[in-house]
Amino acid sequence: MRLAVVGAGAVGRAVVDLAASYDHEVVAVADSSSAVVAPAGETLDPDTVLRRKADTGAVGDDVPEAALDAEYDVLVEATPTTLDDAEPGYGHAVAALERDRHVVLANKGPVAERYDALRAAEDDSAGRVLFEATVGGAIPAVTTIDDLGPAHVTAVRGVLNGTANFVLTRMAAEGLGYEHVLAEAQDLGVAEADPSFDVEGTDAALKCVILANVLYGGGYTLADAEVEGISGLPGEALSLAAEDGMTVRLVGSVEDGDIRVGPRLVPEHGTLAVSGTRNIVQIETDHAGRLNISGRGAGGPETATAVLADVGRLSRPTGSR
Amino acid sequence: MRLAVVGAGAVGRAVVDLAASYDHEVVAVADSSSAVVAPAGETLDPDTVLRRKADTGAVGDDVPEAALDAEYDVLVEATPTTLDDAEPGYGHAVAALERDRHVVLANKGPVAERYDALRAAEDDSAGRVLFEATVGGAIPAVTTIDDLGPAHVTAVRGVLNGTANFVLTRMAAEGLGYEHVLAEAQDLGVAEADPSFDVEGTDAALKCVILANVLYGGGYTLADAEVEGISGLPGEALSLAAEDGMTVRLVGSVEDGDIRVGPRLVPEHGTLAVSGTRNIVQIETDHAGRLNISGRGAGGPETATAVLADVGRLSRPTGSR
Repeated sequence: MRLAVVGAGAVGRAVVDLAASYDHEVVAVADSSSAVVAPAGETLDPDTVLRRKADTGAVGDDVPEAALDAEYDVLVEATPTTLDDAEPGYGHAVAALERDRHVVLANKGPVAERYDALRAAEDDSAGRVLFEATVGGAIPAVTTIDDLGPAHVTAVRGVLNGTANFVLTRMAAEGLGYEHVLAEAQDLGVAEADPSFDVEGTDAALKCVILANVLYGGGYTLADAEVEGISGLPGEALSLAAEDGMTVRLVGSVEDGDIRVGPRLVPEHGTLAVSGTRNIVQIETDHAGRLNISGRGAGGPETATAVLADVGRLSRPTGSR
Repeated sequence: MRLAVVGAGAVGRAVVDLAASYDHEVVAVADSSSAVVAPAGETLDPDTVLRRKADTGAVGDDVPEAALDAEYDVLVEATPTTLDDAEPGYGHAVAALERDRHVVLANKGPVAERYDALRAAEDDSAGRVLFEATVGGAIPAVTTIDDLGPAHVTAVRGVLNGTANFVLTRMAAEGLGYEHVLAEAQDLGVAEADPSFDVEGTDAALKCVILANVLYGGGYTLADAEVEGISGLPGEALSLAAEDGMTVRLVGSVEDGDIRVGPRLVPEHGTLAVSGTRNIVQIETDHAGRLNISGRGAGGPETATAVLADVGRLSRPTGSR
């Protein structure tokens, strides 16, 4: 498939880097200030694009919008997640659908905040929208729910933010306070300079909203989630939990139409107590019990792997290998 | 989709029972001695079929082969797994492919013992073969590897036999000997009267052979697997392991072209130490680290869920919801 990659952060760059190893071609790349588009019938050399980005900060000389007009089969939308109107990601996705092209999202905004409108645009298009990369990085959560059939999934819960989980894991293991561990996480690059999106539960909540939209066929936005973060959690809470063989994780859940994210007591050696930056998704089914899927929940190549798995699904005929 | 279900054991019966809840219809069912086929254009009433099977031991009055001639879209092959020529399952699958129908296997034989021949038959057919149910019950192992792209999976390992795992879990937890726990498992119906298929590692090895065929594009049969079971394992091995925070699991692995199954030391609270009859599959990838997927590895409704997920994949157009 010919890919146009919009967004040249860690995920977009990894998609450009890895596409050829999945037998796909990159014909356009855009970042926030520029774009590079291959001449008609040709493809871009990934190394050249990535080197230029590294050297100059811009992928090319065109205006960013030029990538949207390129001759691609799949638009990979990997600009940063934004809330409310989810722009510019939402507009990029709709522009592709209006041209009857497929869209693969790494950006959570369009499927968390404007799911119903996006699906309506998809219904009018020959293109499809896939978004496995938006929940749990490399973990195939959305696909597994789709394959089981949303009607057969009774609940989904999980640990969906690696930064918050890293902080909780370190607090429990070292008996350190929240502020201390957060500073350490920032030094290591695990937490952003402004960590609120992660530690206040917003990121995990967006992922749960996306799962709710998949489970219930739409209707949810971030405003529907009940969210509590971990920034107020005292170190003593973790010590007390440990005395009973428990620990604390930032758990998100979607069940009976409700979306909740907050710190929860979980067994120290239990399935939900993934450590460090790992994520886990638990899927409860009506006839097959509980499935647990854990893996790396973030990172450029990890998330790009999910993006390229979606591209693969779009490129294969029904039921083929 | 219209299903013909061949094999009326726990899995076949559960497919008949659950098909309607996945919006599929059953048009034919066969067991080892009989079949029932719906009149042209009609479908079978699942409850009637299942009641007759329970009451009389036979699903119908026709000869079993009649189900193969029915007007179905997908043949669900759920007869018992057989080795070597994998008959009659292999012949059933090929008969369906020759009629350009899809095949969904719950029977491990055809994809473990005659994978290459089955794929050749598929290449000549408009029908496709899917077999998620053959590995790890409800766990989406085959699909996840397919979606990641076999070329991007560097190794797969897992605990793939619930009976052996139940025995090892009980031996470790209660300090009991193998013979004692095995008798208990037989009383509970977790182990067969002849448990050798499970405890000698054959069943786990077949699943690893299937995964090897998916990973490497065929070429493997059971004869290629190096297999050691748990029947010779002394209780002391588990006690000694526990002193170091370890336990023993029957682990199967596919890596660098080699298939191995045998008892292995694993951390007591580690990911591979699933308890009871649960299964786990670990998928190592080139760019996304390790994925762990655990769940119920056997059981009628659990395996039927995987069968019906395959049917769903066959019924959806590319990339659609």
